[in-house]
Amino acid sequence: METKFEFAKQIVQEAADYILAHMKEDLQVERKSSPTDLVTRLDKEVQQLLVDRIKSIYPEDLICAEEGCLRAAVGQGSVWVIDPIDGTNNFVAQQEDFAVMLAYFENGVGKFGIIYDVMKGDCYHGGGAFPPCRNNDPLPPFKKKPLQEFLVAGNSGMFESNEWGLADLGRAALGIRVYGSAAISYAKVLSGRLLTYITYLQPWDYAAASILGESLGYRLLTVSGEPADFKTRQPVMMVPIEMQEEIQSYIYERKEN
Amino acid sequence: METKFEFAKQIVQEAADYILAHMKEDLQVERKSSPTDLVTRLDKEVQQLLVDRIKSIYPEDLICAEEGCLRAAVGQGSVWVIDPIDGTNNFVAQQEDFAVMLAYFENGVGKFGIIYDVMKGDCYHGGGAFPPCRNNDPLPPFKKKPLQEFLVAGNSGMFESNEWGLADLGRAALGIRVYGSAAISYAKVLSGRLLTYITYLQPWDYAAASILGESLGYRLLTVSGEPADFKTRQPVMMVPIEMQEEIQSYIYERKEN
Repeated sequence: METKFEFAKQIVQEAADYILAHMKEDLQVERKSSPTDLVTRLDKEVQQLLVDRIKSIYPEDLICAEEGCLRAAVGQGSVWVIDPIDGTNNFVAQQEDFAVMLAYFENGVGKFGIIYDVMKGDCYHGGGAFPPCRNNDPLPPFKKKPLQEFLVAGNSGMFESNEWGLADLGRAALGIRVYGSAAISYAKVLSGRLLTYITYLQPWDYAAASILGESLGYRLLTVSGEPADFKTRQPVMMVPIEMQEEIQSYIYERKEN
Repeated sequence: METKFEFAKQIVQEAADYILAHMKEDLQVERKSSPTDLVTRLDKEVQQLLVDRIKSIYPEDLICAEEGCLRAAVGQGSVWVIDPIDGTNNFVAQQEDFAVMLAYFENGVGKFGIIYDVMKGDCYHGGGAFPPCRNNDPLPPFKKKPLQEFLVAGNSGMFESNEWGLADLGRAALGIRVYGSAAISYAKVLSGRLLTYITYLQPWDYAAASILGESLGYRLLTVSGEPADFKTRQPVMMVPIEMQEEIQSYIYERKEN
């Protein structure tokens, strides 16, 4: 597993270098499901780069990835989960606050996760048998404080509609932040800078963070407190186990009629 | 003015160095007007450092500053406007995304502004007779694009209540961001990473940005499109002049009954 982990960190670095080398070129921005759901040439090229590198060394392994139709389920076999550029809107509009994410599972067990904040050059890596680190520094295990001393993050639309009680949680906390990228938000949770990040996500948005977080005292759950399915788009939250109960006194899944 | 500008940049650097040297100590966090309106020992000490340095060299100059009761009006005389730590909640909860701000006016005319993102080490400086720069690089003049290609920022509560049509503007744009600091948000506007930043602010929150922004094609206005008063807490927006009309088709002051 050591070799696979080193390989994974190396190809994520290659992906980041590729983005840095090409981000000033024409990005060929396209719209996917909505006018604000963007994809660029580089999302596709970076995913292809990662897929090709994995397939060249581990031809039997399976892949679940954001762009296109590689949708292996993580529950069986050796599965890589790829988000080539998380925070594509930030990438296009700001040229910062986006990240490459990679996670690796064997028969449903997370072995390691990697979140690479490309413009800061910060690599969050580890989980499973590997100590979770930012670059060469160990990440801090969760440290409990009163709710009112924590910031919480999510999607602005969810705060606006108070979906799942998100605005109520924000009011009980120190404040609300919206960064526009799951990877960037999770990196802040893993650094102790946010209590939690709550929104609708796909498996590639949360897989790496969920593996990294487990080693630090967090769990990746749906807003009703169940394990995420790692298959479909679900409302999920990464919460410290120690404060799950308190967070869930605000956050709950509303059963629609 | 050249000497005064160099002096200003030097004392802001001293302030940032002071924060970096002392931020791991006990911050003595206190609450001001509300449970989420924080002030620390360092807000006060950094302000005192800046006031002392200004008064030692320019004893006749006047000061308007966030903490305490130095509240000179910018309209008359030589006035320094100080925000020792903007984004205090980020400073306390995240140890990043906060800034020192300093602005200088003569008889109401902005001569230069400085925004120093302490943890990134990025100094935004200039305005008036000085070219606006981030560190040694010139900042880009505003470049018009369709509204839907821009991100907009503000305060989460204002988005939640759609105050001044802020959520409507967010929906017409590429998305909404909430960073928890006027300085950090303005730095992104000045870098072309946000279209606008709209929220209730005090003069020390917007003075530096307003001077820097003027040289790049922006204006600091109230949400009804009037010049800000530089005296009281007002709902203000920094907008590119070229897109003011389009922005104001969403943003307007609601007259309460």
